[in-house]
Amino acid sequence: MSKPALRIGLIGSGFMGKAHAFAYGTAAKVFDLPFEVELHTLADASLDLAQRAASALGFAHATSDWRAMVADPAIDVVHVTAPNAFHKEMSLAAVAAGKHVHCEKPLAPRASDAREMAEAAEARGVKTQLGFNYLCNPMLALAREMIQAGELGEIRSYRGIHAEDYMTDASAPFSFRNDPVGGGVMADLGSHALATAEFLLGPIARVMGDAVTAIPARPDGQGGMRPVTTDDVARAFLRFESGASGSVEASWIAMGRKMQHDFEVYGSKGALLFTQERFNELHFYSADDVRGRQGFRRIEAGPAHAPYGRFCVAPGHQIGFNDLKAIEMAGFLDALAGTAPEPFNFRKGLRIQELVETVLASSREERWRETT
Amino acid sequence: MSKPALRIGLIGSGFMGKAHAFAYGTAAKVFDLPFEVELHTLADASLDLAQRAASALGFAHATSDWRAMVADPAIDVVHVTAPNAFHKEMSLAAVAAGKHVHCEKPLAPRASDAREMAEAAEARGVKTQLGFNYLCNPMLALAREMIQAGELGEIRSYRGIHAEDYMTDASAPFSFRNDPVGGGVMADLGSHALATAEFLLGPIARVMGDAVTAIPARPDGQGGMRPVTTDDVARAFLRFESGASGSVEASWIAMGRKMQHDFEVYGSKGALLFTQERFNELHFYSADDVRGRQGFRRIEAGPAHAPYGRFCVAPGHQIGFNDLKAIEMAGFLDALAGTAPEPFNFRKGLRIQELVETVLASSREERWRETT
Amino acid sequence: MSKPALRIGLIGSGFMGKAHAFAYGTAAKVFDLPFEVELHTLADASLDLAQRAASALGFAHATSDWRAMVADPAIDVVHVTAPNAFHKEMSLAAVAAGKHVHCEKPLAPRASDAREMAEAAEARGVKTQLGFNYLCNPMLALAREMIQAGELGEIRSYRGIHAEDYMTDASAPFSFRNDPVGGGVMADLGSHALATAEFLLGPIARVMGDAVTAIPARPDGQGGMRPVTTDDVARAFLRFESGASGSVEASWIAMGRKMQHDFEVYGSKGALLFTQERFNELHFYSADDVRGRQGFRRIEAGPAHAPYGRFCVAPGHQIGFNDLKAIEMAGFLDALAGTAPEPFNFRKGLRIQELVETVLASSREERWRETT
Amino acid sequence: MSKPALRIGLIGSGFMGKAHAFAYGTAAKVFDLPFEVELHTLADASLDLAQRAASALGFAHATSDWRAMVADPAIDVVHVTAPNAFHKEMSLAAVAAGKHVHCEKPLAPRASDAREMAEAAEARGVKTQLGFNYLCNPMLALAREMIQAGELGEIRSYRGIHAEDYMTDASAPFSFRNDPVGGGVMADLGSHALATAEFLLGPIARVMGDAVTAIPARPDGQGGMRPVTTDDVARAFLRFESGASGSVEASWIAMGRKMQHDFEVYGSKGALLFTQERFNELHFYSADDVRGRQGFRRIEAGPAHAPYGRFCVAPGHQIGFNDLKAIEMAGFLDALAGTAPEPFNFRKGLRIQELVETVLASSREERWRETT
Repeated sequence: MSKPALRIGLIGSGFMGKAHAFAYGTAAKVFDLPFEVELHTLADASLDLAQRAASALGFAHATSDWRAMVADPAIDVVHVTAPNAFHKEMSLAAVAAGKHVHCEKPLAPRASDAREMAEAAEARGVKTQLGFNYLCNPMLALAREMIQAGELGEIRSYRGIHAEDYMTDASAPFSFRNDPVGGGVMADLGSHALATAEFLLGPIARVMGDAVTAIPARPDGQGGMRPVTTDDVARAFLRFESGASGSVEASWIAMGRKMQHDFEVYGSKGALLFTQERFNELHFYSADDVRGRQGFRRIEAGPAHAPYGRFCVAPGHQIGFNDLKAIEMAGFLDALAGTAPEPFNFRKGLRIQELVETVLASSREERWRETT
Repeated sequence: MSKPALRIGLIGSGFMGKAHAFAYGTAAKVFDLPFEVELHTLADASLDLAQRAASALGFAHATSDWRAMVADPAIDVVHVTAPNAFHKEMSLAAVAAGKHVHCEKPLAPRASDAREMAEAAEARGVKTQLGFNYLCNPMLALAREMIQAGELGEIRSYRGIHAEDYMTDASAPFSFRNDPVGGGVMADLGSHALATAEFLLGPIARVMGDAVTAIPARPDGQGGMRPVTTDDVARAFLRFESGASGSVEASWIAMGRKMQHDFEVYGSKGALLFTQERFNELHFYSADDVRGRQGFRRIEAGPAHAPYGRFCVAPGHQIGFNDLKAIEMAGFLDALAGTAPEPFNFRKGLRIQELVETVLASSREERWRETT
Repeated sequence: MSKPALRIGLIGSGFMGKAHAFAYGTAAKVFDLPFEVELHTLADASLDLAQRAASALGFAHATSDWRAMVADPAIDVVHVTAPNAFHKEMSLAAVAAGKHVHCEKPLAPRASDAREMAEAAEARGVKTQLGFNYLCNPMLALAREMIQAGELGEIRSYRGIHAEDYMTDASAPFSFRNDPVGGGVMADLGSHALATAEFLLGPIARVMGDAVTAIPARPDGQGGMRPVTTDDVARAFLRFESGASGSVEASWIAMGRKMQHDFEVYGSKGALLFTQERFNELHFYSADDVRGRQGFRRIEAGPAHAPYGRFCVAPGHQIGFNDLKAIEMAGFLDALAGTAPEPFNFRKGLRIQELVETVLASSREERWRETT
Repeated sequence: MSKPALRIGLIGSGFMGKAHAFAYGTAAKVFDLPFEVELHTLADASLDLAQRAASALGFAHATSDWRAMVADPAIDVVHVTAPNAFHKEMSLAAVAAGKHVHCEKPLAPRASDAREMAEAAEARGVKTQLGFNYLCNPMLALAREMIQAGELGEIRSYRGIHAEDYMTDASAPFSFRNDPVGGGVMADLGSHALATAEFLLGPIARVMGDAVTAIPARPDGQGGMRPVTTDDVARAFLRFESGASGSVEASWIAMGRKMQHDFEVYGSKGALLFTQERFNELHFYSADDVRGRQGFRRIEAGPAHAPYGRFCVAPGHQIGFNDLKAIEMAGFLDALAGTAPEPFNFRKGLRIQELVETVLASSREERWRETT
């Protein structure tokens, strides 16, 4: 009632645009948000498109002029879910207008652009968020809590994977994903694997990359073939500042895999296994268990693992992908209200972008690289 | 925009009251609903409670007088999520006022009451729904579709389970769940197992029940013990009208189980396995697969399994428990709009209640019973 | 070297005849057996068949006259793995000749026959064994040990299954398995489920059976169809003497299942899950685990679980089906040496046979039956 | 009967010595071996040790003089299962005496030694085998067959792991495994991962290694600490000659892992997943499956997957680790009989040793290396 209003402007209404709108719908009910969120204006490529999406997603207004919307004093927060190529321009415009910005990943095709964006936001004093929603899973919070509390002892090794299969079809035409600037699987999916790795184990200090183009040419849409130079599978060896070693792998040609965002963490006293394919579970091995009774135990998400209990008071009922986005939005609003730090801001997005570029540079140069 | 409004009155704001509100929030964005849903009034035991819940869940008004709300001409649909003991009185009042009613399960403690409710609704011409949300899972729709399309051949046997562990603590006090009228696990959880069985294989013709009180007395809250006569574990043999045989089991003392709503269906050409613990998966064995390559395959929910694609365009991302409730609400609204039959109305709820009572009677009498 | 010799006579060289020979080969090396086992004579239907099998399996002699072999003073132990129909006659002949007898299951088609066999053996003072090899799994020993040590608290409920799919083909001809005397799935597979149930939880006091013929007629091999009256799926409710309740199910038409010998045991402090499909694992839930860290843990067989360590000093390497038979043989030899009780003798086989018949009688009569 | 005799001399009676003896016991019964195998002489460090082991494992003679045994004209094949440090000397002596040699892995601490051994055997015309038993699994044969038959289409990427946890305890003393010559996890376990990778996908052309010492010092057994320079975790990027890319990882500090010998193979039409933790299963995804019915299917080992049927005529019953060794021995005997090529001879062992050294050299030099 007496909550301050927060008026949202959304650019884009595709997969992620919808997910943002869904997330606010859910977050407003599930959480005690610090704001009264108003879905104010939805901007899309055409007015017709924007109007239909606004109606479907519950926005009060629609526009085909994202610049006008960004400049509109009525708007407090701008969400950028337009195609990747526009992320930078739109975000910078919003920042310049003094808006808080939630931008879908990737921040920008190049780290230099991402840096410009992060610095602009910091200079302008607005708050930012990047959509790394896998990190919003209560089971990832649990994993990090267990690691930080020493339940696994000293962390010795790590393996992270993000593999899907949406680029397996060699007859599918060359797309923006194959574009040498900003494309490739390490940027698209490996960024998630890197973000999870640092979320759990802290900063990565050095990397050795291996980026591979498995489908060397794709149809150019005009009857010919266009060479592909971006990576379809990419791997990296990692050294964390903590001293632990590890690896990540990203693939978008992993036939049959829909959401293999997995990790394995091995410590001196225990281990954790996780797969996003069953993301309401975390598997924990404790060397402290009695001999003959040891084994990986399947912890199911429940009210003991905040904020799961916000969604459901009973354990084992499971939250969904869109709920992760709702947690993401709620975290951002807490940051806007000043009651919590930004969960994953442009600065952190820049960090991931730099890691991606360092991995790719390392791969090209065939040598280890420091991450900064 | 031009959609007709549908004004919701909700009674209760506990686990299920919240879930209903969440469901409307999600459904309004995910589906193209036939109505503009207005969360109009929330009624709860005290005005203070109601006001806080209304604010949190997005209802415009709050009241401590559910009777007044039910009678209010502004309300189109009444949702009953108050304690089980009130389901009948509230639903009947809403029906009498000409409202459509969505009531949480169970409909009523006794089938005779449920029958009264179903008949009242039918006589009054209002539409009804009962909250059997597990049936709203796209993977259950898939399972039924596969069975009906003959992909498993002739169905020969079935096993259904619904087991949780929230009543394992023998030192927990006697509660309404232990009440001889309407309590017991076959009513509380077995009803789900029975509903799923009929959803998949059609009507059950005969049952042989086995209802067991495993914890014979519980603290009465006054220093003494109170005998328990309701069932903690209950089983039934089944004969379907199709000729297939099967069984169901319900337990609320299955230590470690949080959501074991499982089934196994075996046919002459294939089989299906499902567990609600991983409810975005369905495991399918096809005898048509090539020799040496046969095996249960793990189908992950995706856009091929409507309405999953409404929530997410990418497979394997997973929907959550609250999303099942959103699907449930959307189905109800389609029924209200007249574009689809009621997915699970009071008549069906009565059917389940009768099945539960038949199983329990069969158990008491130690003989097979027709389900009528 | 100085071990006494034990001379084996084997009748039959099919699946189980081979398995017995394999088992001795393995047991002789893996265990420190109390005897020097000599594979003395193999008897089969024809001399040629017997000679080839003897050569392949390492028996010194071959014969087509099992009666002569049984009477041969050189033979100490007779193994009966001939077709079921001959189990009684052969076993009784061996007992009469004063031989110890290892008979494959089932002991006999009828409990009355089984009783005659058990009593004959006891009267003659010879030792006997029946091949219930699933009970020889170290993980079953572990499960029983955990239950008896109270690690699960008071046992409240049980579910056991034995399902395979070798009788799914309705066009396969009527066979001895469909014979009204001694055939049916409760006898063939349900016997295993019942044996495991009593192995883990102790005596069953009462049962209520449900035996179903799912494929009502099969080809008679002469162009016609022959009605089938034996059970393809059979279920039973159980009451254990301990007070726990439970159920078993047997099916040989469970399409896709090759070896679903499963159980779930729920107690007041913990639970166990097991499937023979992965029989080197036992899943254990302990309510004593810290809140937020609870879950079923996958215990992998290892040297902590005797006699696994005899086969392999490293955990997780897994033993196989034939190794279970080797453990079975070693247990029998210990009994013959007088250092341990008979693991599963004719008396216990009679017990299982009686349980099977009681379940079937209960099913026919549609009423609960005491097991006597 | 008329089979030629093959007289075995075994050096060593530890884990692997026993496994070899077990394997012959099983193989002799399960397979139709081309020889009558005689377990002739067992050599161990002391006569007493040798005699006890010979008695337990069924060898006719015992000796503490392995040189004499190797020179004994009565011996046809020498099995070397003594500590790694003796593998070379013993094998060369046996080769020099004209014996066929089965040596446990690793062949030798250095590839140069391994080469000497392979060349000596080839020059002398004797046959050899190295114990890479994981390759003997029928499910690996199936995987290779599927890959070679094109069931996965063009192979694009690969991930292999071999992780266990027997070196997790930092307080365990420095051992031969930590010795700079020949020690380290890439040699001990990574060799398996490399062998499986080449078994499935053919020759590896280039590698980039990352070998890590996670526990930098271990007790020296005299109250002090001794620095460790060998690898506890080691990874490699791979390029196969086929053009596919991949990786392997080896770890002996993977807390909780007992036998994580896993692989994932992704092709243009399908994928395979495997874990040695459940080595009777292979998971297969086929892009040819109907839309909406696709998923990884769990193929259980059965008679369709030779030589499983030799062990058991029924699918899903599972073979064990020792059975893999029996398959290994049978393959060697076929090679000795001249009816099949050597399954994994010293030349192949040399290849693996070279790969290990190349990975380690690559790691030290921090650059990609060709494998030859």
